[in-house]
Amino acid sequence: MVRKSDKEKTADPAAREMLAYAAQEGLETVWDRLERQTPQCRIGEQGICCRICLMGPCRIRPDGKSPQLGVCGATGDTIVARNLIRMVAAGTASHSEQGRNVALLLRDVALGRNREYGITDPDKLRRVAHRLGIKSRRRNLKQLAGQVAEKALDCFSNHQETPLPFLEAYMPDQTRRQFQKAAETLEWEGEALLPRNIDREVVDILHRTHYGTDHEPKNLLAQGVRCALADGWGGSLIATELQDVLFGTPTVQRTRANLGVLDEAAVNLVVHGHEPILSEKIIEAAKSPEMQDLARARGASGVNVVGMCCTVNEALMRQGVEMAGNHLHQELAIMTGAVEALVVDVQCIFPVMADLARCFHTRFITTSEAARFPGSLHIPLDVERAGDIGRRIVRTAIDAFQERDRGKVFIPEQTATAQVGYSVEEIERHLGGRLSPLTEALQSGQIRGIAGLVGCNNPKVPQDFLHIHLTRELLRRNVLVVGTGCWAIGAAKAGLMDPDLVNGVPEGLKQFCRSHDIPPVLHMGSCVDCSRMLLLFSSLAEESGGPLGKMPLVGAAPEWATEKALTIGLYLAASGLPVHLWPLPPVAGSPLVGHWLTEGMAEGFGGYFLVEEDPVAAADRLVEAMDRRRNGSRGVLNPGIV
Amino acid sequence: MVRKSDKEKTADPAAREMLAYAAQEGLETVWDRLERQTPQCRIGEQGICCRICLMGPCRIRPDGKSPQLGVCGATGDTIVARNLIRMVAAGTASHSEQGRNVALLLRDVALGRNREYGITDPDKLRRVAHRLGIKSRRRNLKQLAGQVAEKALDCFSNHQETPLPFLEAYMPDQTRRQFQKAAETLEWEGEALLPRNIDREVVDILHRTHYGTDHEPKNLLAQGVRCALADGWGGSLIATELQDVLFGTPTVQRTRANLGVLDEAAVNLVVHGHEPILSEKIIEAAKSPEMQDLARARGASGVNVVGMCCTVNEALMRQGVEMAGNHLHQELAIMTGAVEALVVDVQCIFPVMADLARCFHTRFITTSEAARFPGSLHIPLDVERAGDIGRRIVRTAIDAFQERDRGKVFIPEQTATAQVGYSVEEIERHLGGRLSPLTEALQSGQIRGIAGLVGCNNPKVPQDFLHIHLTRELLRRNVLVVGTGCWAIGAAKAGLMDPDLVNGVPEGLKQFCRSHDIPPVLHMGSCVDCSRMLLLFSSLAEESGGPLGKMPLVGAAPEWATEKALTIGLYLAASGLPVHLWPLPPVAGSPLVGHWLTEGMAEGFGGYFLVEEDPVAAADRLVEAMDRRRNGSRGVLNPGIV
Repeated sequence: MVRKSDKEKTADPAAREMLAYAAQEGLETVWDRLERQTPQCRIGEQGICCRICLMGPCRIRPDGKSPQLGVCGATGDTIVARNLIRMVAAGTASHSEQGRNVALLLRDVALGRNREYGITDPDKLRRVAHRLGIKSRRRNLKQLAGQVAEKALDCFSNHQETPLPFLEAYMPDQTRRQFQKAAETLEWEGEALLPRNIDREVVDILHRTHYGTDHEPKNLLAQGVRCALADGWGGSLIATELQDVLFGTPTVQRTRANLGVLDEAAVNLVVHGHEPILSEKIIEAAKSPEMQDLARARGASGVNVVGMCCTVNEALMRQGVEMAGNHLHQELAIMTGAVEALVVDVQCIFPVMADLARCFHTRFITTSEAARFPGSLHIPLDVERAGDIGRRIVRTAIDAFQERDRGKVFIPEQTATAQVGYSVEEIERHLGGRLSPLTEALQSGQIRGIAGLVGCNNPKVPQDFLHIHLTRELLRRNVLVVGTGCWAIGAAKAGLMDPDLVNGVPEGLKQFCRSHDIPPVLHMGSCVDCSRMLLLFSSLAEESGGPLGKMPLVGAAPEWATEKALTIGLYLAASGLPVHLWPLPPVAGSPLVGHWLTEGMAEGFGGYFLVEEDPVAAADRLVEAMDRRRNGSRGVLNPGIV
Repeated sequence: MVRKSDKEKTADPAAREMLAYAAQEGLETVWDRLERQTPQCRIGEQGICCRICLMGPCRIRPDGKSPQLGVCGATGDTIVARNLIRMVAAGTASHSEQGRNVALLLRDVALGRNREYGITDPDKLRRVAHRLGIKSRRRNLKQLAGQVAEKALDCFSNHQETPLPFLEAYMPDQTRRQFQKAAETLEWEGEALLPRNIDREVVDILHRTHYGTDHEPKNLLAQGVRCALADGWGGSLIATELQDVLFGTPTVQRTRANLGVLDEAAVNLVVHGHEPILSEKIIEAAKSPEMQDLARARGASGVNVVGMCCTVNEALMRQGVEMAGNHLHQELAIMTGAVEALVVDVQCIFPVMADLARCFHTRFITTSEAARFPGSLHIPLDVERAGDIGRRIVRTAIDAFQERDRGKVFIPEQTATAQVGYSVEEIERHLGGRLSPLTEALQSGQIRGIAGLVGCNNPKVPQDFLHIHLTRELLRRNVLVVGTGCWAIGAAKAGLMDPDLVNGVPEGLKQFCRSHDIPPVLHMGSCVDCSRMLLLFSSLAEESGGPLGKMPLVGAAPEWATEKALTIGLYLAASGLPVHLWPLPPVAGSPLVGHWLTEGMAEGFGGYFLVEEDPVAAADRLVEAMDRRRNGSRGVLNPGIV
């Protein structure tokens, strides 16, 4: 067991304050549980443990000694590749479920079956319809929404042998041709790398990783890429686009981040998870005079809805809702003793939250049938009665207020100002309705490149440390930073989304940002909104007339923890970006797989992974890759020297 | 490392002979690799290792000491349930891919896009169409096939919120109502347990087992059941039904089983894997005068196509092709030195086969893009040129014949006669066009019950030992035995499918079998053909007017090894059967999950699992359950005492 200091646990001062408080109160946190799990299984960490059939579990010795084969004869390479793409499948499945639920809701709205929701952004609907080749003239909005929803649902079904419709509609020709070249390097033919329907690609991975099926590591990895692309150009993209239609395309919002957004005087309701469908209704209900009056009648100053993780990323992008924190803040928020209700939907929610909430007056409310938690108060979201349910949840929070133990309230004061809401549309608006100023700035070298960053937090890394320092190092090197997920919240908490930050960045970036009135660090949304980054990057490549893999664009998922993050990393790398990752994915057990991911895949795809713990070194390597790309040297596709 | 004697490795005398030969020649087998992997990871065996996110890998101490929670806070119960249903998802995915490929082929045949295949069984097509509510009058065969194929493809897509069409068409009302009752015990509503489209159920599992999502073990298990039902009433059923349409519904065939079917004088071509699509063409090509002449011109007596695992189960049921062996025979067949080509499609193929084949003149030919093997000769199946590819493969085998080293040939003599081919239709034909004689025999007690058995082999169990002895013990107790997969081949090798066996069974069973001219052990096909057992059992229940869970019907998957087998076990148990399993699934780390599977689920579903290493005890427990069911005692739903 390795004991870490609070400084080694988190770079966030509010979190450090809470950790000291937790220790004093004897409250357990995720870092305590990690300590108890340390040292973790070395075989599992390296990806060379196989539990796919009951002849196992098998493990390959990492030192080259016997056994080097599983019972069936699988090598470490096969085992690592299989495990890795099963992670990609689960990541795609998760984003896909979000996209599917939104598509089903849009269909129901279009059919008039659901009157709780509406088309908040008709312009976005028309743009999406236009992209999909649906003629919008003379059609009313609901008809149009119905057709868009059907095309989206088609991406989950039908298209058993042909690329999914959103990909057909959104992927630039240039990118598409790139995938044909990449396919050849993997002995796949023509457009075989372009995903068929999303669900099929997920199921395909489970089939070919079933015992006794696919054993060629590169063939497995190729299917991993195809499935990841079904996320980037499918599930995630559908979620983003249709959520914009239903709830509005993000525009600039001023907001604040960190535990200090909890208001001691108010009923605090924290939304947490990933989906906006319910949180939109909760926010609506909380704002209503009826609920504010009720809260005041109970002695509170009102109802304060704030959030965590991607549920808040959705809400802040559209409504400026304040961020209580990212992934590793979830326990800390409850420990403030000032949270009346923690309302969760799906993904990235600690199962201990029910037990922790019971130590306080906090109601831990689960709302999804696909995410039940023993000990929670379960108020299932029925989209046909979403308004009622939103009100019921807010009322539950208000009712809890009187049980708050004022002696137990401990809210760190920290907050940082953040300017957020940078959808691709909002970026374009700032650039004068087009992206060309950005392309020109990249080409002229006014800005050196763009880095797209994405969450998580992982307790193996000091919370936010890599997010903050990699971002700072990139800014210092004249790189525009965009991003999503828990990275975005971490950056916001650290003040990196404060509009004043622009004063401290290098001259080129500063001038570009000032002349277009954008900050140098752009919050682009939740983790499904990595699709916004993918679209932005693809559009820039298309504008500049070259493949994405030759643009000074990079990705990073520092502090990654989830299968989803790996999937995002893979679709970005496959699309042509050098992608920084830390911690190391479970591939150390296979030099072959490791080499393909960090070098080999660059030959066909342009992109590849780089793994680096030190933020300065990571920034150097990313910027070096940008420079070589901008210089158009042939070295671009030889990352071995990066 | 535990050294086993050959007797502990296999109950099959031919295999023992080959093991002695392998030892003498210094050839490695699966048992050697198991020895080197022993002892296996105790944590993994108990299901309490979690590698779902990068905060892990985590492990729960099985002795109750710290740590009892993963880093996120997941309990052993959650971890075990998640791991288990991910296995179910992979099993469903595998059968589902087979069903999908057959449906796509049938569609192409119907559209005239594919002229290599045709409708071999128009009567079956009409029966399937009738079940699906498609009117067949005045429609030509291809139109009908097109509509059936579309309905089948619909089961993989669309139906995002409603039960899949094959289930709607095939599941008796009685069974359907049973699932409503079962749903209540899991706090699911109405028909929520009935699967939506197959792919969605697989994807749903990956989503809810993603880090931070579903943590309620019973909720996870409920989704496992829903997904397994999507296999039984979806992927597997579609594969079976549409393969019958394309290749013919099985009828009685006389054949032989074991390595002795390899013919020293002939070109031996072994088909192995699971799908009939290519093997049908190989068999057709091999029978052609052109190929037989070519073989003779090269000094062979002809071409001898035999098979292993479920590819041969498909081929023997329709064409009487002989069985070289089941799962653990695959290496042994190559070691005879008399196999010119081992041609594989998907699933249950050792990745070492390429290396082993290189020690001989054997061509190891892979044919599926979803199952590549380093070192194989890859001849991909293109269904639009399937005839050519079949011929090319046979020619490749013939060409290899001259390289055979006669000094290395060692073929055990063992074979057993087997009568196979018992589709539900063929059983009905023997019973006079209806199933009522079987229902009556069950009701009167002329036969005590029916047991449905299914493969694999698992080197942790002496090969075929449980298959043979459990079958014998059931027969001894006047139970009719039906089954599929590697069990069926094991039973055939042991002579249990010899028609003369009927003379040795108890009087009731003997009379029933004699009066209907069926043997007491019925080979019902490949592992997807467990759908035939499910249909047979459901039809019997429907005839007798009670739920399946009150009939003297049981299942068993002794010697199971694959995720598919677990899925089959789960859909049989969920349908109401007591299902015997050995070895123990990876659930020992969660008393809660273990209890639900072996007792708790009986309350709602009628069925449950029983785990037992001893075949006599297993037979006793299964028969006791049958007796209680027949007696209609309330004890039926209280398996705690079984």
